[in-house]
Amino acid sequence: MMTQTILLKNRPEGIPSMSNFEFITETSDETINHGELLLETTYVSVDPYLRGRMNEAKSYIPPFELNKPIQSGVIAKVLASKNENFTVGDYVAGMLAWKTKQISNGEGLLKVDSSKAPLSAYLGVLGMTGLTAYLGLIQIGKPKSGETLVVSGAAGAVGSVVGQIGKILGLRVIGIAGTDEKIDLLKTKFGFDTGINYNTTENMKVAIAEAAPNGVDIYFDNVGGPISDAVLFNINRFARLVICGAISVYNNTKLPKSLSVQPFLVRNSALMQGFIVSNYTEKFPEAMKQLSDWIAADKLNYSETIVNGFENIPKAFIDLFEGRNRGKMIVQI
Amino acid sequence: MMTQTILLKNRPEGIPSMSNFEFITETSDETINHGELLLETTYVSVDPYLRGRMNEAKSYIPPFELNKPIQSGVIAKVLASKNENFTVGDYVAGMLAWKTKQISNGEGLLKVDSSKAPLSAYLGVLGMTGLTAYLGLIQIGKPKSGETLVVSGAAGAVGSVVGQIGKILGLRVIGIAGTDEKIDLLKTKFGFDTGINYNTTENMKVAIAEAAPNGVDIYFDNVGGPISDAVLFNINRFARLVICGAISVYNNTKLPKSLSVQPFLVRNSALMQGFIVSNYTEKFPEAMKQLSDWIAADKLNYSETIVNGFENIPKAFIDLFEGRNRGKMIVQI
Repeated sequence: MMTQTILLKNRPEGIPSMSNFEFITETSDETINHGELLLETTYVSVDPYLRGRMNEAKSYIPPFELNKPIQSGVIAKVLASKNENFTVGDYVAGMLAWKTKQISNGEGLLKVDSSKAPLSAYLGVLGMTGLTAYLGLIQIGKPKSGETLVVSGAAGAVGSVVGQIGKILGLRVIGIAGTDEKIDLLKTKFGFDTGINYNTTENMKVAIAEAAPNGVDIYFDNVGGPISDAVLFNINRFARLVICGAISVYNNTKLPKSLSVQPFLVRNSALMQGFIVSNYTEKFPEAMKQLSDWIAADKLNYSETIVNGFENIPKAFIDLFEGRNRGKMIVQI
Repeated sequence: MMTQTILLKNRPEGIPSMSNFEFITETSDETINHGELLLETTYVSVDPYLRGRMNEAKSYIPPFELNKPIQSGVIAKVLASKNENFTVGDYVAGMLAWKTKQISNGEGLLKVDSSKAPLSAYLGVLGMTGLTAYLGLIQIGKPKSGETLVVSGAAGAVGSVVGQIGKILGLRVIGIAGTDEKIDLLKTKFGFDTGINYNTTENMKVAIAEAAPNGVDIYFDNVGGPISDAVLFNINRFARLVICGAISVYNNTKLPKSLSVQPFLVRNSALMQGFIVSNYTEKFPEAMKQLSDWIAADKLNYSETIVNGFENIPKAFIDLFEGRNRGKMIVQI
C-alpha cells in the first residue's frame, strides 16, 4: 500500500509558501506489533500556532524538524488494532503526522463518538479550539456578568467560540475582524453585540471606545499588533488581557514593535497573561462537559471551512494567514 | 505667620523643569476648628509616579490641578490639635500638600513613632516604598525559593528593597542600574548576587542571559523601555512580570514603542501585571509588620538621599529623572 506524507522541507521566512513543504509517496509497511494501531487519516486540522513550530526558536512545544513529517490535530479511523483500548472502525483524535496512513501506539489518542457530533467538531469546538476558547476566557479572563469583552480574530475558530461563551455568561461582546462579511456573521450567527472591521475603520481606538462605552474589562487577543494597541487605550481598571495568539506577527521576520504596554498596565492595574491550553489539561474534562452541554442545548454555533484532499493541506494552512477561513479550517482526506 | 506653598503652574512636556512650578508665600490663617490639626512639614517625599499626576491623562489617581498645591507623602509635626486622635508634638505621615504649614482634618494620617525608626524611614522602607516592594513582589511575583529575580531601577528606593526581600526569600537576585557605583552598592550594601550597568553594557539581552543561567522567573520592572525588552528574551515558562513603574517612558511626549510583548507572553505562558500599592490596603498591616521585623533583625538596609530646604523640593523631584538619587529621595524642611 502507498502512503503519502508531507515533510517540512525548509523553515518559512515570513508567510509560508508551498516551497516550504515536500510531498513524498512511499510503500508503507503496515505490520503492527502488540499495542499498536494502523490509522487512516480522515480529517486534518491546520492552525496558526503551527507556524511557530516551523521556526527554530525555543517555544512551548519543540520546533518541527526539517525533513520530518509535520504534525497537527488529526481524526483517524482505526484500520487494524493490536491495542486493547481500540477496535477496528473506531475513530480517534490526537496529535498525528500529516500522513494518509500511520502506525501509533495509541498514546495520547482519544476515541471520539461520531453519533454525538460530526467528526470534524472534535478538531474544533469539541477539541483544542473549544477548550482554548473556554479555558482562556474562564481561567485568565475571569468574566463577570455585565462586563465588556473584546475579541480579536473574532470570526476565527477560537474567537467565534469565545464571543458566544461571553454572551452565555452575560457579557457585552465586541468582535474585531477583517471583512464586513465576517462582521455580519459575528452579529447574526454568533450573537456578538457588535463588530468592528479593522480594514475599513480609520481610527480603531475611537471605534472601540464607541463600541465599549463602559470600557473594556476583558480582551481576548488572538492577533497582537496594532489592533491590540488600539484596545489598550480602552481598558478599564483591573482589566484582564488573555494573550492567546499573535497571528499578526507570527510571520514577521524582524521582531515586531508595538506600543509599550507597561504604562497602560500600571495605570489600570491590568493583567496580561499568555495562555496555552496544554497547561490546563486537568481542567479538560470539566470544560468538555460544559462545551458539550452548550452544544446539546443549541447554545454554541460553530463554523468550519472544510477543504478536500490530502494534497491541499499546505495550501489550507497558508490560507489561514490571509484570513480565507471562516471558523475552524479543516482538511478532509 | 507666613506659609510657603508650591503650585503646579503648568503641565510638563517631557522632563519637568523649574518653570513648571510656582512658589507663593502668604499669610496663613492658623485658626483650627473642632476635629482639625495644624501641621508643620518636616519631610517631603518626591517620587517618580508624581510625574504621571502632572499630566492631564486619566490615571489611577486624578491629575494635579493647575495652580493648586502639589501633594505627596509628607511627615509633619502637630503644632496644634482639636482632634482627639492627635496631640501636640505627635508626628504624622500622610498625603499632604507641598506647604510649610497646613491644616488637616486628620483623615488618612497615621501617627509615626520616631523612637522605632528615623522619621524619614516612614516615607521609605516603612512607608509606600517598602509596601510597594513587599506587596508587588509577594502578591504578583509569587516568589519561590531557588527562583531567579531581576529588578530594574535596582538602586532606587523600591528596587533596593525588592532585591533584599528576594534574598531573604532565597532567590537569586540580579539588579539593573545605570552607574558602576550603584552596581557596587547593590552587591555590597544590599546583597544582590550580581548587577548589570545598562549604560556600559552593549548587549543587555546577552548580559542578562549570563547573569541568569537558569532564566528569569520574576521580573520586577520599575523602568520599562529597552531594558525591559532585553529581559523578555530571558524569561522562563510561567514567569511573572511585576510592572511597578515605567520611569524610562514617563517623560515621553509621544507614546513609546517597545518590542511586542505578546509573543513572549504566549510562548512562555507568562504573566505581566500592573501593580499599584493602593489596591492592596487590606494587606498593609501584615506587610508593615513583616518589614518592621526585618528591619529590627537588621535584615533590610535602605538608602536615602536627603536634600535640605523647602525651596529645593522641585529640583529634588527633577533630579529623580536623571538618577541623582541613591534610594529614597527625601527633602527635609
